Amino acid sequence: MFTNVRIVLVHPTHPGNIGAVARAMKTMGFSQLFLVKPKLFPNPHATERAAHAADILLNATVVSEFLPAIQDCGLVIGASARARDVPWTVLSARDAAQKIAQESAVIPNIALVFGNEQNGLSNEELRHCHFQVEIPANPEYSSLNLAAAVQVMCYEMRVAYLNSLAHENSGPEKKHPPATTADLEYFYQHLEKVLFDIGFLKSTRSNKIMQRLRCLFNRTRLDRREMKILRGILTTIEESKV
Amino acid sequence: MFTNVRIVLVHPTHPGNIGAVARAMKTMGFSQLFLVKPKLFPNPHATERAAHAADILLNATVVSEFLPAIQDCGLVIGASARARDVPWTVLSARDAAQKIAQESAVIPNIALVFGNEQNGLSNEELRHCHFQVEIPANPEYSSLNLAAAVQVMCYEMRVAYLNSLAHENSGPEKKHPPATTADLEYFYQHLEKVLFDIGFLKSTRSNKIMQRLRCLFNRTRLDRREMKILRGILTTIEESKV
Repeated sequence: MFTNVRIVLVHPTHPGNIGAVARAMKTMGFSQLFLVKPKLFPNPHATERAAHAADILLNATVVSEFLPAIQDCGLVIGASARARDVPWTVLSARDAAQKIAQESAVIPNIALVFGNEQNGLSNEELRHCHFQVEIPANPEYSSLNLAAAVQVMCYEMRVAYLNSLAHENSGPEKKHPPATTADLEYFYQHLEKVLFDIGFLKSTRSNKIMQRLRCLFNRTRLDRREMKILRGILTTIEESKV
Repeated sequence: MFTNVRIVLVHPTHPGNIGAVARAMKTMGFSQLFLVKPKLFPNPHATERAAHAADILLNATVVSEFLPAIQDCGLVIGASARARDVPWTVLSARDAAQKIAQESAVIPNIALVFGNEQNGLSNEELRHCHFQVEIPANPEYSSLNLAAAVQVMCYEMRVAYLNSLAHENSGPEKKHPPATTADLEYFYQHLEKVLFDIGFLKSTRSNKIMQRLRCLFNRTRLDRREMKILRGILTTIEESKV
């Protein structure tokens, strides 16, 4: 999945963030990490925060300038929350992820680029991006942690990928089989009988109460095993009255 | 926005994660943080990682047990990646966020609950959740950092909120108020007692059966009127036995 999609961090300052980025990537199935002139790397803080994603750090590509990190890419999207003088084409996180999911089948390499923690991407760096992506955020405090931003984007790409699979073959999940309408009718008859027997239902109000109970149990979409438990309870109530 | 939606962290171990959670929340416009028996809090690591979200830490509600953190809530959703013996109703992150966005207009309080970094939520804690939410992840390494998981969920809720604004004027249906977690607990205690009294539950299998019944009734989102009907049925069964 998405083996041709890389995450590019430009001048990351905190090694802990690099490790957290690696973890965020791996949890969503990404592995290609490019680091442009990282301040401290490799570094024990990076390894620690990477947890079980240290392999991504080991295989990371470290370059000293931005262009070599993206020059073989056919689609480059830059993440930036800063408003720009020259308005770039800005995609939402979801739209950008869908674009990447669609194009990853036909484009050799795709880069999703994140700027430095303090300053984001420079205008010079943004110039090389086909699009800008913005994660919708609180206007009063929109500064996501670097790894948090990578997590959101990788999550969106994974969901876009899964959705594209689902459209290909939408097989139903394996579950307990649902109770059928006939099962439900037997259950409601049984329930009504028992509620009369124990004196809970009296003729005048019973219709409305039974309707509400039907509404409740219909809504919950009982499976057969649950149905069996409920029928068992009703039978036990009947027997305990004898 | 979403002032009645709280993030609940159960037994968080690392204070840095608590701070990162506060930052993740604030970037998406959330402010209500509940901490259940945090290992170290307050703590300078939490404050450091919170960056400009230290106000959320200052206003966090710290409690010593889980139930007080959720007892006034009408919708409780637990985040957990662990597979369970008794399958809870599992929503995707996106579906859970849409549900919360829809219901936050009519339900007084909503909790999104995250377990401990090492072990996630216990079965005992999950029992109190109406739904479980799962963030789609790499099956080979699905362990998101705690704050990263909160970031994804808060992001999804923000997007769902923004989408709902776009669709506004389709006002929510008028409904009966939902049963709270406290109501549900009384109901389950009553139900379990009655099922023992009538001999339906025997000690060995009772746990699993009660769990399935909880799953069924949690899923159906009882309102207060339905709750009253069900409690009435239980009381009538008790009386009819005398």
